[in-house]
Amino acid sequence: MDTLHVKSSQNVYPVYIGRDLYPKLNELIPDTYTSILIIADQTVADLYLGKVINGLKRSNVHQVIIPSGEASKNIKMFYELQTKAIEAGLDRNSLILALGGGMVGDLAGFVAATFMRGIDFIQLPTTILAHDSSVGGKVAINHEAGKNLIGSFHAPAIVIYDIATLQSLPKKEIRSGFAELVKEAMIDNTAFYKSILQTDLDDLNDQQLIAYIKKGIKVKAAIVEADEKELGIRKYLNYGHTLGHALEAELGYGQITHGEAVAFGTLFATNISEKIYDCDLKFGQLFKWFKTNAYPLDWQHINLHRLIERMKMDKKSVARHIQMVLLKEIGSPTTKKIRESELLDFLEQFMKELG
Amino acid sequence: MDTLHVKSSQNVYPVYIGRDLYPKLNELIPDTYTSILIIADQTVADLYLGKVINGLKRSNVHQVIIPSGEASKNIKMFYELQTKAIEAGLDRNSLILALGGGMVGDLAGFVAATFMRGIDFIQLPTTILAHDSSVGGKVAINHEAGKNLIGSFHAPAIVIYDIATLQSLPKKEIRSGFAELVKEAMIDNTAFYKSILQTDLDDLNDQQLIAYIKKGIKVKAAIVEADEKELGIRKYLNYGHTLGHALEAELGYGQITHGEAVAFGTLFATNISEKIYDCDLKFGQLFKWFKTNAYPLDWQHINLHRLIERMKMDKKSVARHIQMVLLKEIGSPTTKKIRESELLDFLEQFMKELG
Ligand SMILES: NC(=O)c1ccc[n+]([C@@H]2O[C@H](COP(=O)([O-])OP(=O)(O)OC[C@H]3O[C@@H](n4cnc5c(N)ncnc54)[C@H](O)[C@@H]3O)[C@@H](O)[C@H]2O)c1
Ligand SMILES: NC(=O)c1ccc[n+]([C@@H]2O[C@H](COP(=O)([O-])OP(=O)(O)OC[C@H]3O[C@@H](n4cnc5c(N)ncnc54)[C@H](O)[C@@H]3O)[C@@H](O)[C@H]2O)c1
Ligand SMILES: [Zn+2]
Ligand SMILES: [Zn+2]
Repeated sequence: MDTLHVKSSQNVYPVYIGRDLYPKLNELIPDTYTSILIIADQTVADLYLGKVINGLKRSNVHQVIIPSGEASKNIKMFYELQTKAIEAGLDRNSLILALGGGMVGDLAGFVAATFMRGIDFIQLPTTILAHDSSVGGKVAINHEAGKNLIGSFHAPAIVIYDIATLQSLPKKEIRSGFAELVKEAMIDNTAFYKSILQTDLDDLNDQQLIAYIKKGIKVKAAIVEADEKELGIRKYLNYGHTLGHALEAELGYGQITHGEAVAFGTLFATNISEKIYDCDLKFGQLFKWFKTNAYPLDWQHINLHRLIERMKMDKKSVARHIQMVLLKEIGSPTTKKIRESELLDFLEQFMKELG
Repeated sequence: MDTLHVKSSQNVYPVYIGRDLYPKLNELIPDTYTSILIIADQTVADLYLGKVINGLKRSNVHQVIIPSGEASKNIKMFYELQTKAIEAGLDRNSLILALGGGMVGDLAGFVAATFMRGIDFIQLPTTILAHDSSVGGKVAINHEAGKNLIGSFHAPAIVIYDIATLQSLPKKEIRSGFAELVKEAMIDNTAFYKSILQTDLDDLNDQQLIAYIKKGIKVKAAIVEADEKELGIRKYLNYGHTLGHALEAELGYGQITHGEAVAFGTLFATNISEKIYDCDLKFGQLFKWFKTNAYPLDWQHINLHRLIERMKMDKKSVARHIQMVLLKEIGSPTTKKIRESELLDFLEQFMKELG
């Protein structure tokens, strides 16, 4: 088991990464909580809830199982979970355990952030993508009008990443998780980026996976420690997300994985970064890598005006001016306001280049 | 105009108190916000929204008017306000202005706390009660099961208390506000408490009112500065609230004012404090003062078991054990766990004493 530590304004929390950690949950989680509410989605609950409950070896454990998929990350489910927490008799000294990917982590985390004005929560990430979402304390639900528009900052008390769970991930969830790794690599350093471009997602071994996840978490942790509240450099973690989030919302939450949408957004951000800053970000190789690994990139039928409308509601926008994260080179992100007409030109050209 | 300053973990915010401050809003509020959304309830909007908009002298001002009364402080309205904020094009550098009493302050504050993970908000309190709710950064909405169960801490950027608005308050809202002043007086000092017991709510002049409000805010500010997150002494501000909140929820939000419910709870807490600590808190005088000033105290028909069930869901409860704030003497609050059976005895006896 590896341990990283992440500093937040509220606490310093450990991130445990390793194989078969669930049997040790009782040792890893303090026994001072008056009660525990586990929140998991159906798929994950079927696979791992029993193991978690066994590992906890506690009496006062409650559970709620919610439908799998991004569509659950909404206001209705948020309120239902608050009701469950009340019914389970949780108090200010209780704990919420988020068992699952980023959807459950964001949703359960926002419930914890607002239940009786905030109680502890622990993340048990079960997707590759959740290496990103479980660290940094951003919690949220979606609004029909846009991703993560309702939320807050609430650092987890602990993150316990049992790598064994990743074996059951379907292919598209591996793709989804790797999109965030590509993003972290591109905003951070060339070697990391190059090594991903040489990786075949159909042929990953445990060793590689753990190494990538640790690299990703380190990039993320360094950024959020320097700028927890996203006043500056934390924005860079949104590389690929302005268009990505717009696509996700436009297709309807759950119609495409978050990472697949981000991959498309990353490709676009890379494309225009090369044009604006006249740099070499290996757009061609990245495009090829996404295609080889079966990322869905064929969005020719999408209405570009509607995408742009959605991009205006992005959290980085200021006074409805679209602000994108771009790269001056690998490892050198920046933000740039882009006029609507210019953006439309860029988007149309990009769509043509994808063919 | 008087200015107090309150320290929070997020900022130090000024509390301006005076007459006719709305014409000066443009000077009091920084001009750096990209846009402003005013949230007000219907009654208050009819009376003061025009004055506020005139005083702001800004172009980018939006408004939402919601139904008056505690029933609006719910999850549905919360989501609607998020939608309005998005539609108005608010971004992370925008401002929410809460114009009204504690209901609007708590609700609009919680919207601000969670819109895009938190934007600034400014309180323009218009009730006496709001001297309490506008300071301290607690924001929340109600759950059917209990008051303020969903919320967070989000300090206002500024509080602007225009005392002129208090003239239009109906009698029962004056009563309501004074209940929190009684609470602050009792947990703080004898002279303050005595002076309230000598005050006739039908015959208050401006001078007195301003003096009381300032006193109340000072008591509150000192406590929240010492314990913002309610890990210790902030609990004392809940004197009278364990039963008060239960009564409010049991009758249905809006059926009784918050302060009227708190008055009843305060009477009860005073009653049992005298019994448990064998002290003299002037229960008799307090009872008489509440009666003289027409506080509703006749709750003989209420089911005590249901009240107790609700008290268990109070935020101060731990592992469903009811914890009440009591007084060892005026100015010396403490917390005490009370067994259910004992509480029932106390409640039955109290009801008899009220006759
Ligand atoms: N808070 C942050 O900083 C942050 C960062 C990035 C992404 N996010 C959010 O994360 C969410 C996406 O996370 P996600 O991709 O993990 O989605 P997810 O939680 O919906 O999981 C994806 C799918 O995989 C299934 N699954 C999860 N673990 C599994 C396992 N071990 N085996 C088999 N199936 C499994 C789930 O049931 C689900 O159907 C989005 O809502 C996104 O906005 C948040
Ligand atoms: N956040 C905190 O720390 C805190 C502290 C105490 C109370 N509260 C909350 O505050 C709320 C109660 O606040 P409230 O009593 O101000 O209720 P409120 O905001 O509902 O106002 C009471 C009534 O007075 C009307 N009104 C307001 N200002 C007026 C004016 N100037 N002239 C005429 N009518 C006016 C309103 O329309 C409403 O009908 C409760 O929800 C309570 O939980 C919060
Ligand atoms: Zn992402
Ligand atoms: Zn109160």
